[in-house]
Amino acid sequence: MISLNELNITIIGLGLMGGSLAGALHGKCRHVCGIDRNPNTIDIALQKNILDKGFTEINHEIIHADLIILATPVKTIIHYLGLLAEMTELKCVVMDLGSTKSQIVEAMQQLPEKMDPIGGHPMCGKEKAGIMYADSDLFRGEKFFLTPLQRTTENAKEIARAIVNTIGALPIEITPDQHDLTAASISHLPHVVACCLMNVVDQQSLINPHIWNMAAGGLRDTSRLAGSDPEMMFDMLSTNREFLTAALDDFETNLTKFRAALNNDEAELRGIIQAAHNARKGHYS
Amino acid sequence: MISLNELNITIIGLGLMGGSLAGALHGKCRHVCGIDRNPNTIDIALQKNILDKGFTEINHEIIHADLIILATPVKTIIHYLGLLAEMTELKCVVMDLGSTKSQIVEAMQQLPEKMDPIGGHPMCGKEKAGIMYADSDLFRGEKFFLTPLQRTTENAKEIARAIVNTIGALPIEITPDQHDLTAASISHLPHVVACCLMNVVDQQSLINPHIWNMAAGGLRDTSRLAGSDPEMMFDMLSTNREFLTAALDDFETNLTKFRAALNNDEAELRGIIQAAHNARKGHYS
Repeated sequence: MISLNELNITIIGLGLMGGSLAGALHGKCRHVCGIDRNPNTIDIALQKNILDKGFTEINHEIIHADLIILATPVKTIIHYLGLLAEMTELKCVVMDLGSTKSQIVEAMQQLPEKMDPIGGHPMCGKEKAGIMYADSDLFRGEKFFLTPLQRTTENAKEIARAIVNTIGALPIEITPDQHDLTAASISHLPHVVACCLMNVVDQQSLINPHIWNMAAGGLRDTSRLAGSDPEMMFDMLSTNREFLTAALDDFETNLTKFRAALNNDEAELRGIIQAAHNARKGHYS
Repeated sequence: MISLNELNITIIGLGLMGGSLAGALHGKCRHVCGIDRNPNTIDIALQKNILDKGFTEINHEIIHADLIILATPVKTIIHYLGLLAEMTELKCVVMDLGSTKSQIVEAMQQLPEKMDPIGGHPMCGKEKAGIMYADSDLFRGEKFFLTPLQRTTENAKEIARAIVNTIGALPIEITPDQHDLTAASISHLPHVVACCLMNVVDQQSLINPHIWNMAAGGLRDTSRLAGSDPEMMFDMLSTNREFLTAALDDFETNLTKFRAALNNDEAELRGIIQAAHNARKGHYS
């Protein structure tokens, strides 16, 4: 297995995910360098002692990186991949933590030959954004998808798996399309649903001023994902339009059936509720 | 304030809610009697030492009750209220823990004059049903709605408030209509959404066998309510059809706007996501 302690790592984007990753890797690699456009973020990361060095933009230091990890929202990752594509002097593995994979892997495809790209997506998060909430245990026990490209070397795959193992996560290899198809249902659809729920209750509060005061744990859990970073959500949802639209179709079909059963068919309503209950019990103990 | 230690309490239905209530009240009242049609449930409750006596059906002992608390799903509560209505020898306060209030309070209206009814609804739960998961701390810190009737005496209100305070919950008085209108958005709609999400993912798993294996914390939280007791959910949703249908209308309007923005209008999509995020941040820290 690859050892990380000879590796210089540069993390671009020090929000919840990048900051947590820096915390989980610092001290286990030769050098962890962080880049974030917000100078306060760099200060906090240095104070937290999760970085060896920090910069507000890419500079000449990046030439030393053996591994660059892009940890911003998806569209910013694609922007940085465009910048890296012009830095022909770099020779390193390039990985990311973006929530969708197809467009990112397409941009990775354009990197110069000396760069060795691989997509990544840790399946975890918090309803809190920013370096203040970074937690080096964030990834522990969670799934971490890896989407290698045709061109990805065995060396890059080994480094990516070593990173995932080191932070306590479980590496799972998958194609970008399979990732985005599945994430549409298990992650992006729940984000949309959480957002719509919050907006319904917020709109109702205009005519029912006590509604927020009456809200309890059920709404809190069902809407947790609406607290995610808005830019992350926007990028995630808008870079997975096709699969998300198909998932929304399926969801609306189910919602329509539910409504019809609620109004006309008690046996059908019982069946729908029981099926949902069984699915939940079967997959979450 | 009323003291409970002179009170004989009979709890009908010893599932998660009734069992938790028995645990929270046992030792603080003169006598806690439990009734559940399942003899195993009675055995477990007696073993857990949360009851003084237990029976599988209503019998002559109920004549001693100063307070009867109905803790079954809504339609069974209404069934028991019909039975109590014929027991003209009873003189006691009658309370319930049902998830909807209008139909229950309507049935309470039919009770003989010597009975003193008040509706109740603790805003808490678990995705686990049954006496095995009963937890005497379940109500601690949670809201507990009380819906008095026109006929409800000050004595019954005081007893109900004393019960709520004793189990560590926060009593909030509200009309049955206001309760059901609000619960439709903050509780029943989230239950429907959680069920539909589970069914979407379960249906997708037929053509994408890895989907459950890839599911992570976001789906787990968003779908938690689908794990609630199916009979409780069925009764709750089908006794609040009108308000729930209006909440579903609002939800679908939001979903339609979301889809349109996803496909055609990035500024609108950012606005919808930001509004949901702000609502969440503003009401759940």
